[in-house]
Amino acid sequence: MAYRTCVTIICLLNLVLEVVDVVTQPNPTSRVCIIGAGYSGLSTARYMKEYGLNYTVFEASRYIGGTWRFDPHVGTDENGLPLFTSQYKGLRTNTPRHTMEMFAFPFPDDTPSYPTGECFYKYLQSFVKHFHLMNDIQLESFVTKVQWSGDGWNVTFMKSDTKENVTEFCSFVVVASGEYSKPFIPEVDKMNDFKGKILHSHDYKDPEDYRGQRVMLVGAGASGLDLAVQLSNTTSKLVHSHHLTYNQPKFPGTYVKKPDLQYFTPNGAVFEDNSFEEFDVVIFCTGYHYSHPYLDQLTSGITATTAYVLPLYQHIVNIKRPSMAFVGLPKKVVNKVLEIQAQYVAALAADKFKLPPQAEMLRIWLDHVQTLKKRNYITDVNVVQDMGKYFEDLHKEAFIPFVPPVITTIRDFNQQNRLDDLLNYRDYDYNIISDTEFERKYNPREPVCNVVI
Amino acid sequence: MAYRTCVTIICLLNLVLEVVDVVTQPNPTSRVCIIGAGYSGLSTARYMKEYGLNYTVFEASRYIGGTWRFDPHVGTDENGLPLFTSQYKGLRTNTPRHTMEMFAFPFPDDTPSYPTGECFYKYLQSFVKHFHLMNDIQLESFVTKVQWSGDGWNVTFMKSDTKENVTEFCSFVVVASGEYSKPFIPEVDKMNDFKGKILHSHDYKDPEDYRGQRVMLVGAGASGLDLAVQLSNTTSKLVHSHHLTYNQPKFPGTYVKKPDLQYFTPNGAVFEDNSFEEFDVVIFCTGYHYSHPYLDQLTSGITATTAYVLPLYQHIVNIKRPSMAFVGLPKKVVNKVLEIQAQYVAALAADKFKLPPQAEMLRIWLDHVQTLKKRNYITDVNVVQDMGKYFEDLHKEAFIPFVPPVITTIRDFNQQNRLDDLLNYRDYDYNIISDTEFERKYNPREPVCNVVI
Repeated sequence: MAYRTCVTIICLLNLVLEVVDVVTQPNPTSRVCIIGAGYSGLSTARYMKEYGLNYTVFEASRYIGGTWRFDPHVGTDENGLPLFTSQYKGLRTNTPRHTMEMFAFPFPDDTPSYPTGECFYKYLQSFVKHFHLMNDIQLESFVTKVQWSGDGWNVTFMKSDTKENVTEFCSFVVVASGEYSKPFIPEVDKMNDFKGKILHSHDYKDPEDYRGQRVMLVGAGASGLDLAVQLSNTTSKLVHSHHLTYNQPKFPGTYVKKPDLQYFTPNGAVFEDNSFEEFDVVIFCTGYHYSHPYLDQLTSGITATTAYVLPLYQHIVNIKRPSMAFVGLPKKVVNKVLEIQAQYVAALAADKFKLPPQAEMLRIWLDHVQTLKKRNYITDVNVVQDMGKYFEDLHKEAFIPFVPPVITTIRDFNQQNRLDDLLNYRDYDYNIISDTEFERKYNPREPVCNVVI
Repeated sequence: MAYRTCVTIICLLNLVLEVVDVVTQPNPTSRVCIIGAGYSGLSTARYMKEYGLNYTVFEASRYIGGTWRFDPHVGTDENGLPLFTSQYKGLRTNTPRHTMEMFAFPFPDDTPSYPTGECFYKYLQSFVKHFHLMNDIQLESFVTKVQWSGDGWNVTFMKSDTKENVTEFCSFVVVASGEYSKPFIPEVDKMNDFKGKILHSHDYKDPEDYRGQRVMLVGAGASGLDLAVQLSNTTSKLVHSHHLTYNQPKFPGTYVKKPDLQYFTPNGAVFEDNSFEEFDVVIFCTGYHYSHPYLDQLTSGITATTAYVLPLYQHIVNIKRPSMAFVGLPKKVVNKVLEIQAQYVAALAADKFKLPPQAEMLRIWLDHVQTLKKRNYITDVNVVQDMGKYFEDLHKEAFIPFVPPVITTIRDFNQQNRLDDLLNYRDYDYNIISDTEFERKYNPREPVCNVVI
């Protein structure tokens, strides 16, 4: 609580600086703190290191890898902390690795285009090793508070093993704690009446756990479709409640498609069409809340709710205090977006380019909100509307590498393909031919992983 | 631009105070500035005066009354300023006056339950006279900037006649500039192809302007339904594109119900069901943007977009700087809500009650957002979800009068009645019997107005 007790002259000057910062560029970066050692945090660390900046990655768990690491724990980890990873057994990426690979650090050539989650985790481990990042990653450091200090940020973290609290000063903070760890379950009428088991896909680990059971899945986003494929092989009956329009494949076993939920009963649910189904377990594949409980909203300039985080320039920069940046906030984008954001943020911290004046950043953000409103798409203000344009904009602004249009093309093609051919769309290998062209070959095989750590 | 040039010691101390304010109650109120002399601003002024506070109302136009005053101008007024009122000829309130009357200041007994807009304007004029508010209303003062000064607010306004800019200091600011003045028109495909006239209901003045023409209305909110009734009497053909489910009456003339728009053509439009209609004029009854262009977002603590204004405690108090409050922000509430907000804000400025700590206000607001998200209703974060509970909460917190449940009951009853019997629902008079009961009599008559100014 530096604010309440701040009485010295230096302190006063710090507070004055805070206000000045509101209308200026960030101070020269003396120390960068990165929150989270998943894909986003690791990418960011790499570029911070390349620019020769002094940085630390604070990672809550004992491991790097974020959501790519499978963990057998449910709910909380061995230190009693929330379990951040949402990985499950048998996961394969749902978009070709070309849209996910780190810059100039591809998977081995013979890796299938859709590697397993396990293989992707290995890839991140090899990335950390290759770029010698481990020394600057502080594991078991669970960030609990990020507070504006007057000329930078006080970052408080709890040592997960000893429960000791430590506060350190950072001139620049990168929020990269991941947006797929806090499950979102919508309100459904009479949910408390249901006698069976209710979980979120975040806590789903293995299709074998449900062998012979009657399961209902809710939702048909990435997880919903994936779990439908996995669970149709093990359950005695799979009810799938969703409103996605797609080419529903012939699932093995007893698969029942249902519209949205109306209400639960003690042993099942009634749907919008008034039909009823019985089941033992319901798994909500209904996405994730935003969650940044450590951000001090009264001093950080950010308003962070479960539904949105704002106002941000380029979905990255805290407009009111530009020495805070986010990597990996937008949902429904390929990892390449996170990688490019990491490059942008490192270039910003290294003062390689200048942000527009704050009033201009705010205006651009307000225009973005207005555009969403006009398109009746105001539900997610953190959405990247046009990924190709976004790559181009960041490239031009921050002088970072250009992501060729073929990446966006593959993303779009893959998305459609997933809807058209859910059971087999991963049985192809992709090959990038030019900045605008790719080829795809049917090549069904075991998803071998030759990544060496 | 006090920030950039602030170098004196007093200035530094002011800046320090700014930061301190972030975690404390507002400073003692030495001067209140109210932006807008419509229903909300006038209600607020009355209570400020009752509490003996020093206050000024800044009103952009030459008149009090806000949106209740009919103005023949379209778009801009005689001073070249945007025209704020959205009043049209023949308007009658769409909810009984009992849900709109100022506290202890009813309409004359013989006033119909649904007075005309003209009568409501007279009512506001008589209100100003009765409470001797005029001396503290500064007309033709168009607020262009509200900026945090360190220990209060610098309010800049332009004298609408001389175009002179003046900045005055206010320890407490009330934003009451109205939320029905900035038209919202959604993006529709090929709208630029349409050769006819396109306007928003904000600029609609009189059904006679469209006599014999073919008109399309878009939307079936309050204005859409009202204009349908008015225009069905004068147009040669009325196309109504909307998705409201209601008991559509037998409109006079040629009335064509259509679903939502798909795209425009040079002389008409194609709808979602692929049908086509020709028309000469389209009137978008698609509601209003939020608009607070004068709020300096980098210093005020508020994020104000066209789609939402946040974060606010009780839909009223600027959580980050509680010496700023909003009256009349939530949409789709009866005026009684605005009146109660005015009482709450005056009680706050007069220090009659204490706000919760900022962290607690923020937590309550975040819970509100999360609840909306769970209910898939995140599009309007400024919505009052339960009006009855809201009245009760404000009453308990700020020791202001209790609004009896019968008001909410009448609101709900009236809403349903409007959908059931659009052409005749105003032909009834309401009488409040107790805190929970009312009676309604069929009493069709000319909407006489006996309000004396």
